[in-house]
Amino acid sequence: MQPKLTLVGAGPGDGELITLKGIRALQKADVVLYDDLANATLLDFAPAHCLKMYVGKRAGKPSKAQDEINTLIVRLATQHGHVVRLKGGDAYVFGRGFEERTYALDHGISCEVIPGVSSSIAVPAAQGIPVTCRGVSESFWVITGTTRSGGMSKDMELAVQSDATVVVLMGLNKLQDICALYVRNGKANLPMAVIQNGTRTGEQCVVGQVWEIPSLVAAQGVGAPAVIVLGEVVALHKAYLPAYLQSLQLACI
Amino acid sequence: MQPKLTLVGAGPGDGELITLKGIRALQKADVVLYDDLANATLLDFAPAHCLKMYVGKRAGKPSKAQDEINTLIVRLATQHGHVVRLKGGDAYVFGRGFEERTYALDHGISCEVIPGVSSSIAVPAAQGIPVTCRGVSESFWVITGTTRSGGMSKDMELAVQSDATVVVLMGLNKLQDICALYVRNGKANLPMAVIQNGTRTGEQCVVGQVWEIPSLVAAQGVGAPAVIVLGEVVALHKAYLPAYLQSLQLACI
Repeated sequence: MQPKLTLVGAGPGDGELITLKGIRALQKADVVLYDDLANATLLDFAPAHCLKMYVGKRAGKPSKAQDEINTLIVRLATQHGHVVRLKGGDAYVFGRGFEERTYALDHGISCEVIPGVSSSIAVPAAQGIPVTCRGVSESFWVITGTTRSGGMSKDMELAVQSDATVVVLMGLNKLQDICALYVRNGKANLPMAVIQNGTRTGEQCVVGQVWEIPSLVAAQGVGAPAVIVLGEVVALHKAYLPAYLQSLQLACI
Repeated sequence: MQPKLTLVGAGPGDGELITLKGIRALQKADVVLYDDLANATLLDFAPAHCLKMYVGKRAGKPSKAQDEINTLIVRLATQHGHVVRLKGGDAYVFGRGFEERTYALDHGISCEVIPGVSSSIAVPAAQGIPVTCRGVSESFWVITGTTRSGGMSKDMELAVQSDATVVVLMGLNKLQDICALYVRNGKANLPMAVIQNGTRTGEQCVVGQVWEIPSLVAAQGVGAPAVIVLGEVVALHKAYLPAYLQSLQLACI
C-alpha cells in the first residue's frame, strides 16, 4: 500500500463539470474527504470499499479546522492508501490546496493536483456572463472576500480603479463594503451581478447597477455561497436592461 | 433535425482535463470545429458520422478569421444539426466564445456553453504554482497579451502596482515590454514564470526574477503557446531558488 494524496477540483457545483481525470482519481480512491461545495453525486464514482468523509467548509456552518484536515489526510493516507481531497471549484483558487499539498509532502506522502473548473469563471458563464469579451473586457481579476484578517482584501482598492472584470468569491458578507467602495470611486452605475448556487439547484441571480445591488439582494433573499461580478460584461446578461429599467421605475414610485 | 451550437472548453491541453459534460456533448455532435489548443484525442469521443474540422487558431499560423468561423457555425448547424465548438481552455477566457454564441443566437440557433478548465489556473498548477495561496496572494488577475489594437493591455499598468498574481495569456511576444514595465516599477526582483505547452507534450518552464526572464527564455528556447505568471506565488515553484542561485552565479562570471 502506497500512501498518496490527490487534490481534485470538483468544479462549480454541476456534477457533470468534473474532469475525466478527476473521475479517474475518484475511481481509485480508498478515502474521499469532501467539502460542502463539491457535488455529493460525485461520491458515486468512488469504489464500494472507499471511506467517504465530510470535512466542510461553508461560511457559518461548523467544519473542521485546516490543521485538523491536514492531519487527517496524513493519517488516512498512511492507514488506507489513496486519499482524494474533493474540493469545490479548483483547489488552488482560494481552496487552501497548496497548504494541504505541502503538509502531505512534508510527511512523506506524494501528492497530485488535478485542476477543476473554477466557479470564478463558470458561475458567471452559466448566467450568460463572459468574464472577458473582445471590446468589453481585456482581463478579469478574481479576489477573495474572506481574508485571513477578516477585512476586505486591499486588492479591492486597486481593482475598483481598473477596467478588469472583478470577480469576488466568498464575499457576500462584504457586499455593502464592496458597493460603497465602488460608489465612492464614481462607479455607482457599473453593472454588477450576485449569483447564488451557480450551476446547481437553487441558482439565483441578481443583476443591476452597483448602487442598487444591496437592496435587490436583500429583496430577493440571495445568500451564500455566492459569486459577485463587477464590470461592463455584466451588461451582456439578458436580464440586465430589464432589471435596470424596473429599478428606475421602482425608484420613481 | 434541430440546429444547435455547444461551446465546449477543452481544458489546457491534457486530454483528461475535459469535463464529463464536454465529453457528453462531443458524443452527441454532428460536427466538431476545433482549435489548435484543444487536444486532438478528444475528437475520438465524437460518433463515427461526425464531421471534424480544424479552424485554428495559433499565433503565427494560418487560421480562419472569426467572421468565417461564425458563418461556418451557422451553416453547418443548419445543414447537419449539432455543432460542437471545441476550444482550448475555457470559451469565455479570451476565447471569443461570447461572439460565437451571440452570432448563433442572432441566427436562430440555440447555444449551450460548457465551461472548461482554464489554462490561466491549470497551467501554473501543473508546475506546482498556485495562483492563490493564503499568506502569499489574495487574488489573481488574468490579462491577455494580445489586444485588439496590437499593443500591451493598459490593464498591465495597474496590474504592476498590485499584489495580485498576474497571469498573462498569449503574451510571449510582449515579454520584453512586460518585463521592462515591471523593472520600471521597482519590481525587477519579483518571481516570474514562463510556461510553454502546459499540461501537454513538450511542456517547458522557466522560473526566475523579472530582470533575468527574457534572457532565460531566449536561452531555453521557450516559445508559444505560453502562460506568463508574475507574483510571489512563483517562489513556491520547486526550481525557483536553485534557478535564482544559478543565475547569480552566471552573473558573477
